[in-house]
Amino acid sequence: MAQIPETMDVVVISEPGGPDVLTPDERPVPRPGPEEILIRVAAAGVNRPDVLQRQGKYAPPEGASDLPGLEVAGTVAAVGPGAERWQVGDQVVALLPGGGYAEYCTVHATNALPLPAPLSPTEAGGIVETVFTVWHNVFQRGALRPGEVFLVHGGTSGIGTTAIQLAKAFGCFVVATAGSEEKCQACRDLGADLAINYRTEDFVAVVKEKTGGRGADVILDMVGGSYVARNHDVAAEDGRIVQIAVLGGAKAEINVAKVMMKRLTHTGSTLRARSVAFKAELARSVEEAVWPLIAEGRFRPVIDATFPLAEAADAHRRMEEGSHVGKIILTVRD
Amino acid sequence: MAQIPETMDVVVISEPGGPDVLTPDERPVPRPGPEEILIRVAAAGVNRPDVLQRQGKYAPPEGASDLPGLEVAGTVAAVGPGAERWQVGDQVVALLPGGGYAEYCTVHATNALPLPAPLSPTEAGGIVETVFTVWHNVFQRGALRPGEVFLVHGGTSGIGTTAIQLAKAFGCFVVATAGSEEKCQACRDLGADLAINYRTEDFVAVVKEKTGGRGADVILDMVGGSYVARNHDVAAEDGRIVQIAVLGGAKAEINVAKVMMKRLTHTGSTLRARSVAFKAELARSVEEAVWPLIAEGRFRPVIDATFPLAEAADAHRRMEEGSHVGKIILTVRD
Repeated sequence: MAQIPETMDVVVISEPGGPDVLTPDERPVPRPGPEEILIRVAAAGVNRPDVLQRQGKYAPPEGASDLPGLEVAGTVAAVGPGAERWQVGDQVVALLPGGGYAEYCTVHATNALPLPAPLSPTEAGGIVETVFTVWHNVFQRGALRPGEVFLVHGGTSGIGTTAIQLAKAFGCFVVATAGSEEKCQACRDLGADLAINYRTEDFVAVVKEKTGGRGADVILDMVGGSYVARNHDVAAEDGRIVQIAVLGGAKAEINVAKVMMKRLTHTGSTLRARSVAFKAELARSVEEAVWPLIAEGRFRPVIDATFPLAEAADAHRRMEEGSHVGKIILTVRD
Repeated sequence: MAQIPETMDVVVISEPGGPDVLTPDERPVPRPGPEEILIRVAAAGVNRPDVLQRQGKYAPPEGASDLPGLEVAGTVAAVGPGAERWQVGDQVVALLPGGGYAEYCTVHATNALPLPAPLSPTEAGGIVETVFTVWHNVFQRGALRPGEVFLVHGGTSGIGTTAIQLAKAFGCFVVATAGSEEKCQACRDLGADLAINYRTEDFVAVVKEKTGGRGADVILDMVGGSYVARNHDVAAEDGRIVQIAVLGGAKAEINVAKVMMKRLTHTGSTLRARSVAFKAELARSVEEAVWPLIAEGRFRPVIDATFPLAEAADAHRRMEEGSHVGKIILTVRD
């Protein structure tokens, strides 16, 4: 076991602003409290909430680290009292309320899972946030069932590439929207039955046509705004629309008679603010349902690019520029 | 057993329009098909959809009678092949897709239930539509649990008076809105813990204040329009809003970030268009859960007024005038 140093390299948000405010810095290595583990971080995923936090629009939840970073892969470096499952040296992935842009982080033992074979730590560094988000919102909250029509917007995002593969593995007819022909092809390559370029086609009309008028049973949306009413339009009877972000704006005009007549369910959630206990239960469910799919090669995270931790600003620029396909990963330590 | 006549008195919608278009007429007595029963109607409930149908805004579903009337109480007068549960002479209540404004009606055997003791046929004539609607939307779709805060708008309507009593019987903190001090008192008399006069008070502020900031866990709404955003505001975290009508308009502006951040579920349904099988399953559930509450005297339908069938126009005037508390019933035959 490697010696745990007193201090560690991190990336801080020096002030609210653009990517340049992400600044390399040094911090004391945190110590695991009761039921916590200390992880020596190999790789950390970059997520949209990191960008919002950097811009000063998304304060970390109470008690969380002020450093950005919601997910890591790495090695257990120390175990707090009561964190029975883990031993020093175990390779893990973990969902964090913050603090991932660092060489070390602490997390409640129940919010970590074993590194899923056969993935490398770099591949797995960006797996937790998206898989947890998709599993909860699409399969638990949205109750997607085999044979149903599933529509995901932003098909080439980390969420999109995960949702396409998981819904396909569960035997659904998978539709994705994306903003270019290249991105549509990437969606199809991942298993989407239908990819729609939202810049040139009306996804409501195309989905209706290609499903014989049925529409989508479950819709995973991170756009909001004008998409909300269109999601209600394209939804099948008894359709479920699950909102996980509002990148296109929070204000939406709807026809609420449609919600009633089609018996729609419009819901949504955010992951970060949930309790440790909720995340623990979700981790258990993901380990049971999704880890075997990874072992069987039926789901593999799509990595767009990797950046060294100190170049987190470049990683954010890449995310905001918007041409990425899959996850952007910060590599931290070998 | 009384002889079944060839023809019967009914009330028809002579043309789309005001209450006066409801006209006494004569029709052949229908014959029960396979798995159907013929009911000699004692009393029929008047419902909002009857008014919409009369105005030409709500066509009967395919295969349904063109006569208005969604619920009756009466006596089984004939049994079609395969309708095993019932015998001629049984007292029943039934949910109809239409055809209740008549001396006789047919219905699928599974969409009828025994007349619940100790109610008279007149009391029970308006029980089915409201109890089925409340049971499905509040307890099944909304998953209201004991100890939760339940808010119903239109507390003195047939739906409202039913929802208040059932939610109270299930151990909830019950809040109702109504349009006058007298109606608020009627809500409290039925068991509401809190009644809010929406003409003089802001229900969002009052509910928040009286629940220590929590808000309502389940909201049953028939208003829509500007109430939709206010329902989202007053909903608790993980709150469920169930839409069963849009009397205040179908167009609504919402903040979809709130749906996500509070993990709301906005859904809704209509009962009339559902399949016979769905209604049969709902009938089974209602008989199991609600009929014992009636037997124990913990739920009793509130009757506002009764009118002879031939005076259905007056019954509609009373409903549209809006001062009624509870159900309006048409009495048909003794």
